[in-house]
Amino acid sequence: MKVRSIYDFLDEISPFSLQEEWDNSGLNVGDFESEVKKIYISLDIDESVIEEVEENSLLITHHPLIFKPIKKVIPNRFSTKFLISLIQKNISLIAMHTNFDKTHLNSYFAKEVLGFDGESEDFVFYSDIFMEFEELVKLVKEKMNLNTLRVVKLNDFIKRVAITTGAGMGLLDSIKADCFLTGDIKYHEAMDAKARGISLIDIGHFESERYFVDVMYEALKLDIEIKKINSKNPFELI
Amino acid sequence: MKVRSIYDFLDEISPFSLQEEWDNSGLNVGDFESEVKKIYISLDIDESVIEEVEENSLLITHHPLIFKPIKKVIPNRFSTKFLISLIQKNISLIAMHTNFDKTHLNSYFAKEVLGFDGESEDFVFYSDIFMEFEELVKLVKEKMNLNTLRVVKLNDFIKRVAITTGAGMGLLDSIKADCFLTGDIKYHEAMDAKARGISLIDIGHFESERYFVDVMYEALKLDIEIKKINSKNPFELI
Amino acid sequence: MKVRSIYDFLDEISPFSLQEEWDNSGLNVGDFESEVKKIYISLDIDESVIEEVEENSLLITHHPLIFKPIKKVIPNRFSTKFLISLIQKNISLIAMHTNFDKTHLNSYFAKEVLGFDGESEDFVFYSDIFMEFEELVKLVKEKMNLNTLRVVKLNDFIKRVAITTGAGMGLLDSIKADCFLTGDIKYHEAMDAKARGISLIDIGHFESERYFVDVMYEALKLDIEIKKINSKNPFELI
Amino acid sequence: MKVRSIYDFLDEISPFSLQEEWDNSGLNVGDFESEVKKIYISLDIDESVIEEVEENSLLITHHPLIFKPIKKVIPNRFSTKFLISLIQKNISLIAMHTNFDKTHLNSYFAKEVLGFDGESEDFVFYSDIFMEFEELVKLVKEKMNLNTLRVVKLNDFIKRVAITTGAGMGLLDSIKADCFLTGDIKYHEAMDAKARGISLIDIGHFESERYFVDVMYEALKLDIEIKKINSKNPFELI
Amino acid sequence: MKVRSIYDFLDEISPFSLQEEWDNSGLNVGDFESEVKKIYISLDIDESVIEEVEENSLLITHHPLIFKPIKKVIPNRFSTKFLISLIQKNISLIAMHTNFDKTHLNSYFAKEVLGFDGESEDFVFYSDIFMEFEELVKLVKEKMNLNTLRVVKLNDFIKRVAITTGAGMGLLDSIKADCFLTGDIKYHEAMDAKARGISLIDIGHFESERYFVDVMYEALKLDIEIKKINSKNPFELI
Amino acid sequence: MKVRSIYDFLDEISPFSLQEEWDNSGLNVGDFESEVKKIYISLDIDESVIEEVEENSLLITHHPLIFKPIKKVIPNRFSTKFLISLIQKNISLIAMHTNFDKTHLNSYFAKEVLGFDGESEDFVFYSDIFMEFEELVKLVKEKMNLNTLRVVKLNDFIKRVAITTGAGMGLLDSIKADCFLTGDIKYHEAMDAKARGISLIDIGHFESERYFVDVMYEALKLDIEIKKINSKNPFELI
Repeated sequence: MKVRSIYDFLDEISPFSLQEEWDNSGLNVGDFESEVKKIYISLDIDESVIEEVEENSLLITHHPLIFKPIKKVIPNRFSTKFLISLIQKNISLIAMHTNFDKTHLNSYFAKEVLGFDGESEDFVFYSDIFMEFEELVKLVKEKMNLNTLRVVKLNDFIKRVAITTGAGMGLLDSIKADCFLTGDIKYHEAMDAKARGISLIDIGHFESERYFVDVMYEALKLDIEIKKINSKNPFELI
Repeated sequence: MKVRSIYDFLDEISPFSLQEEWDNSGLNVGDFESEVKKIYISLDIDESVIEEVEENSLLITHHPLIFKPIKKVIPNRFSTKFLISLIQKNISLIAMHTNFDKTHLNSYFAKEVLGFDGESEDFVFYSDIFMEFEELVKLVKEKMNLNTLRVVKLNDFIKRVAITTGAGMGLLDSIKADCFLTGDIKYHEAMDAKARGISLIDIGHFESERYFVDVMYEALKLDIEIKKINSKNPFELI
Repeated sequence: MKVRSIYDFLDEISPFSLQEEWDNSGLNVGDFESEVKKIYISLDIDESVIEEVEENSLLITHHPLIFKPIKKVIPNRFSTKFLISLIQKNISLIAMHTNFDKTHLNSYFAKEVLGFDGESEDFVFYSDIFMEFEELVKLVKEKMNLNTLRVVKLNDFIKRVAITTGAGMGLLDSIKADCFLTGDIKYHEAMDAKARGISLIDIGHFESERYFVDVMYEALKLDIEIKKINSKNPFELI
Repeated sequence: MKVRSIYDFLDEISPFSLQEEWDNSGLNVGDFESEVKKIYISLDIDESVIEEVEENSLLITHHPLIFKPIKKVIPNRFSTKFLISLIQKNISLIAMHTNFDKTHLNSYFAKEVLGFDGESEDFVFYSDIFMEFEELVKLVKEKMNLNTLRVVKLNDFIKRVAITTGAGMGLLDSIKADCFLTGDIKYHEAMDAKARGISLIDIGHFESERYFVDVMYEALKLDIEIKKINSKNPFELI
Repeated sequence: MKVRSIYDFLDEISPFSLQEEWDNSGLNVGDFESEVKKIYISLDIDESVIEEVEENSLLITHHPLIFKPIKKVIPNRFSTKFLISLIQKNISLIAMHTNFDKTHLNSYFAKEVLGFDGESEDFVFYSDIFMEFEELVKLVKEKMNLNTLRVVKLNDFIKRVAITTGAGMGLLDSIKADCFLTGDIKYHEAMDAKARGISLIDIGHFESERYFVDVMYEALKLDIEIKKINSKNPFELI
Repeated sequence: MKVRSIYDFLDEISPFSLQEEWDNSGLNVGDFESEVKKIYISLDIDESVIEEVEENSLLITHHPLIFKPIKKVIPNRFSTKFLISLIQKNISLIAMHTNFDKTHLNSYFAKEVLGFDGESEDFVFYSDIFMEFEELVKLVKEKMNLNTLRVVKLNDFIKRVAITTGAGMGLLDSIKADCFLTGDIKYHEAMDAKARGISLIDIGHFESERYFVDVMYEALKLDIEIKKINSKNPFELI
């Protein structure tokens, strides 16, 4: 199957034109005319992913490989190091990032993983939950299979939650809810939310997006061998 | 004592001209000509700090109140909310941020808290430690009095550490060490460090900077009543 | 009455979305949720205005308090000095500037004060007057109650005037008239108009906008005590 | 005499490299290799100046002809209209603007016209005068031969004045004096000065710079016929 | 006839609003109100053109006189030198550049000169020609009356050509053809086309646009004397 | 030999810090730590160069591979196409561009190829030659071994030439000579030079820089196998 056919299929189920202006979704590395025998799906790239993917395959990841444009290709950072690896193994890479957040990932996480009703506005899923904060934390832990959560607790009772997988604190100005669930929360962002009276639950960037592989697998109705692989969470708690 | 006298003293021990271009250290709120009877020192501002500080005092914090310039003063975010509170209680605010990092805080943390030898280059303290990674983690936990640490472990043995209090991942390009200790590490930053082979220990933004109060208290040799107070860490682990 | 209710009423009679991109009309200081007992209307803020307005009131002015965004709130300039005063007296401030020029002030001045027929295009009112220049000057003096006018006289007879209250010389490229009435005319602007053959009558920034108080008072049909006050013209001729 | 020789002489007495970054002092129109028989000096250009200057002469003015770069040369504004006139009469134009302010004009005005002692810092002349405000106004009127002055009076007694010919209000942040004498003062600038407690006397842009002709005439020690002419003040008070 | 009448006629047959954002088509020099007795048409301006055009005429050229805005009018470069000449002879200049390319010149060249069928998309004319490369080169030489052509030959057989008169290599990203005919091809542009597999034939900037005079002459149906003149090709091959 | 050792040697004979701000000289592709057995030198990259260079070698070219930073690595243009080829063959690439122009190439061309005396100022070599224009053209043809030259002839006799290899017309404002020898001359640039009275001889971008290989070969005194190869001139004259 040609890379272009797969690209066109993906564009139909989650149009690349929906991506944010700063994003780099689409064919990041490779050739539209390449013939591939296998598709791999992974949240991200790391060395074990590179090892596992066979030569001449297509890799679909959530995160683009290159965010900041590059002028030198020297293996001294994430983007250029794995760019070299991909080219050496002739692996094409398509990123399905903010377009896929909007069409699939965010509402899947809110509805299927956490079990909430509600609707997405752009990157944010809203749900009226009427729940004790402690109860909400317990639910999130169970559904996400996590032992501890980092939280900013400002209300005992939560009427409405906002949910954004990945790193969503840049959206704080637009959040209209008592509690915001997102990942990668920095200290000053937490202080700001606290001043606004919005509770926070840090659901983890990796932890909240690792469902990407399953969601994409389900969506990818193509007559070609498809394999799920797992990039690792770089963090461990010790 | 006039605010200006205190400002001049601070400028002498840690010149405001050393601050980064994007920083806003100096007199953020108040009047150089105000007469104050008391100085309060806190890492940051929160509601309990506002309550505790008496009217007509001077507050010295690490973080500036305003980063992004403002055109409307409505209590809907951190900076404007506490700006209103400070003005209502006639409290002047001086921020000692990146200038103080360079002259005092970073090397205090590395030397006095962690007990390392070495030297600071701008925002980064380097120390040749020759230590097992596990041993380093244990030491950091003990010295910082923490139960768990979030780490990215890539080397079993660490020859050289780099240390930056607060949020230092923006400096990654310049880090020349096996392991970097800093706070507020985001997922993509961790992936990048992993690709470069640099281990990380997340020492927390708040946790690594809370020593500010003690260091400033020691440095502030002025004939006026000085009180330490503690802004709260917005996060809790549950 | 809540500040928000008054804001919503003002937005209905003169939508804030009509303001220019560089303007800062809207709630400049205060809280949408504050309860106020009295509204004051003034062209601008000065110390006597601050003194006269009671605590916990709402002040409506023509000019925004803040034009250039601020990072330090020290009473060393107009915007920050009165920002502090307003907060100390818990006075909310709404500015009705370029939106109100377009919907009310400019055509009021041209029609009701000067007595001309015609129509407004954005910030400029045009009227076909067919009048001697001297006669026009005499009319303006009488209607505005002024003894002297600063003029650039290039035509003895004026067929068509353009009128912009406040400081309108930035619009010169678009002016299609024999004579332009506006305020705050600078020397090079006058030289430019002279080269183009457009006569000028300087109607004063303050003098042409002081009608704001009356026009707003008439428009403000709300069930709450409303008081007109007068900020002073900073200039005097001696 | 070649235009280049005159240019070189001017560059020696008031180096063009001293001009501000936004300025356009130097040869604005003409040819360094042209031979001229006469030099004319004028504050500015207007139609009577164009008429009076003979063909093939050099005109030295204070203000540059072009500030904003041009792409179309159509006589619909000051700069392009007189650009055409100058070229049609083959008149070269040299502007001596901010460089000449710094080396000659500002201190001439303060010392020779007003009779003050003191020194210039860049564009601002400072003098310790210890004088009643009314007395200062009277002195300025007499020395400048003016009947009325537009002022912002905030202090009865003036210890120190700052003086900038032309339009100096953009320098307000740097002014360290009780009273500032400059021209082209706009309403919001006056309100700002009032909030800062700095009195103002509007000495007029044209009125304070018309001495340019005499100062330049004195400085121009060249063996060629030199004539003073007077561009008109566009404003009249009626 | 007034310049404005001619301008309006031109605007009707080839609207100036079609020009590119960086272009400067329209009245570059002169006065809409001038009365002219004669119109001259030339591809460009040079000294012989200036000599030939009578005073008080209108000159229509393809290229604008000024591309980069100017602040000094000294005869040290193309734009300012001929600006001075035009003004001295009171010649008005209208440029018909990218608007005319789109409406007339490019398709005239492709259809009438080269004899191809096809259609223009913005600046590019496409034609399905199915021809040997050598045959195509021979045809271009004959039709354009040229002895040698500079080419980048990558295909023996050309199915589809793209044609842009003047300098079109900036459009390479959008070209969908086997061979691109345009002028002013630089070395790195040729290397890039070679890497993409697109053959090139350099049809010359001057050589491909010299038909402007004829096309404009045909289009200019006005009751006034019209003369064609020829600016020279600056290059010669020796 | 390590890439780093070769890089350091090159940096010594022609410091990379001398490159222009827009340039991308240095290690463009590869790894400082790679071990290479062979060095190849070529003016540029094309498919035959890629074929000829052995795997795991180092290629030194004059032109950088990447000028405009890239976000997608798809073989649809020069830079990304050959980036992929280089990585697939594990070839490192160092560009020696504007730094080498300044230290070696330009004066080699002027002195050794053309046989002129003189000196380089930045990118321009000046020589006082006192020669008929025709004689100069003949000399250039002979020395460069070319049959025809594209010229702009404005003077019969040339006193002083300026010489810049590659594409030098962007330097025209600074050229102080009767005749400028450079490559890639575009039509409007020729018209501009003509208006300034500066004759031009187009020495070709490729033709004037192909000496790079020899000059670099001579300069590269390293104990490793070094091979010269020749990228092709994309143009042919037919």
